[in-house]
Amino acid sequence: MKFSPLVQELIDSLKCLPGVGSKTAQRMAFQLLERNRQGGEKLAGALAKAMTEVGHCQQCRNFTESELCEICASPKRKIATQLCIVESPADVIAIEQTAEFQGRYFVLMGHLSPLDGIGPNDLGLDILENELLKGQITELILATNPTVEGEATAHYIAEMAKHYQVTISRIAHGVPVGGELEYVDGNTLSHALSGRKNYSV
Amino acid sequence: MKFSPLVQELIDSLKCLPGVGSKTAQRMAFQLLERNRQGGEKLAGALAKAMTEVGHCQQCRNFTESELCEICASPKRKIATQLCIVESPADVIAIEQTAEFQGRYFVLMGHLSPLDGIGPNDLGLDILENELLKGQITELILATNPTVEGEATAHYIAEMAKHYQVTISRIAHGVPVGGELEYVDGNTLSHALSGRKNYSV
Repeated sequence: MKFSPLVQELIDSLKCLPGVGSKTAQRMAFQLLERNRQGGEKLAGALAKAMTEVGHCQQCRNFTESELCEICASPKRKIATQLCIVESPADVIAIEQTAEFQGRYFVLMGHLSPLDGIGPNDLGLDILENELLKGQITELILATNPTVEGEATAHYIAEMAKHYQVTISRIAHGVPVGGELEYVDGNTLSHALSGRKNYSV
Repeated sequence: MKFSPLVQELIDSLKCLPGVGSKTAQRMAFQLLERNRQGGEKLAGALAKAMTEVGHCQQCRNFTESELCEICASPKRKIATQLCIVESPADVIAIEQTAEFQGRYFVLMGHLSPLDGIGPNDLGLDILENELLKGQITELILATNPTVEGEATAHYIAEMAKHYQVTISRIAHGVPVGGELEYVDGNTLSHALSGRKNYSV
């Protein structure tokens, strides 16, 4: 005994979402069918549209339905000489919210992970190299995550970029602002110590 | 700064799923866009189809895309005199898997909850009363959940059904098979004690 064919198909399809197993998919399907058909239809439309129309920005690889994303298309940003390399579109949003950075981005959409078969070309490093060849970029800011894979990716990109006339920098690692030393892990603390700066008053 | 319009719309729509907030919706959208467009398109299709085509069985209120669900339509079940009342379609599946019950079901699709505005008619109790009026049913098995709301719903249905010529029973509450007394909560244990049966060897 199973659910009716369409309900079963909906439950099976929902399982393609990350972190959703049989029980969660079932709960989601029932919730939509019983209480929120309108939301379900809206989701179906948004999904269908996004899956077919959203592609990558030709310059920075961020998700966009146009040829260039909003940032790359902005006249102010076009003349930027700084290029910030991040792992995901969410990182772009996070950095944009600081309003500290006026340059352009390059979104890797992941990190190097040989075990998962993700190599340099899957991260679009060939596109990045083309960008460097143009000679407009003078500084490359490596803002990959401070994880093992993120560090390895940053290292790989730095190796690649040192053949070009660019300054290569890495975002600072240290104690989070507002944090307490007591609760910061040892690794971060040793980074914070070795990366100390002169403090002038 | 936000994501591109279609991506943002997808993220917002995903939030209609139960237990999915901004961060999870974002992760789901990126996962589908980056690694599983095919799955996303399949989900869009299944959703659209289910939302428009799946309705309720006219007899038992279970989800189905036909007029009668598989169980109500089965010739063997049509002549059944037992009616098992459950809260959700998942409960039907659970009871069917025991292969102990050959009667028909009635799915409430929830429980009485005055605070949420869910009254007797939202649970289809008028349909249930019509069913009892036909006189085919001789036993009503109340299999709502052993929660406060489930008990209240069972009580309400029992009150309603006592005007008809039917035996009313409630599924047994007690110590789960394979469980250890030590870890069973006091409420369940007191139910198990008061519901004790003669043990003949």
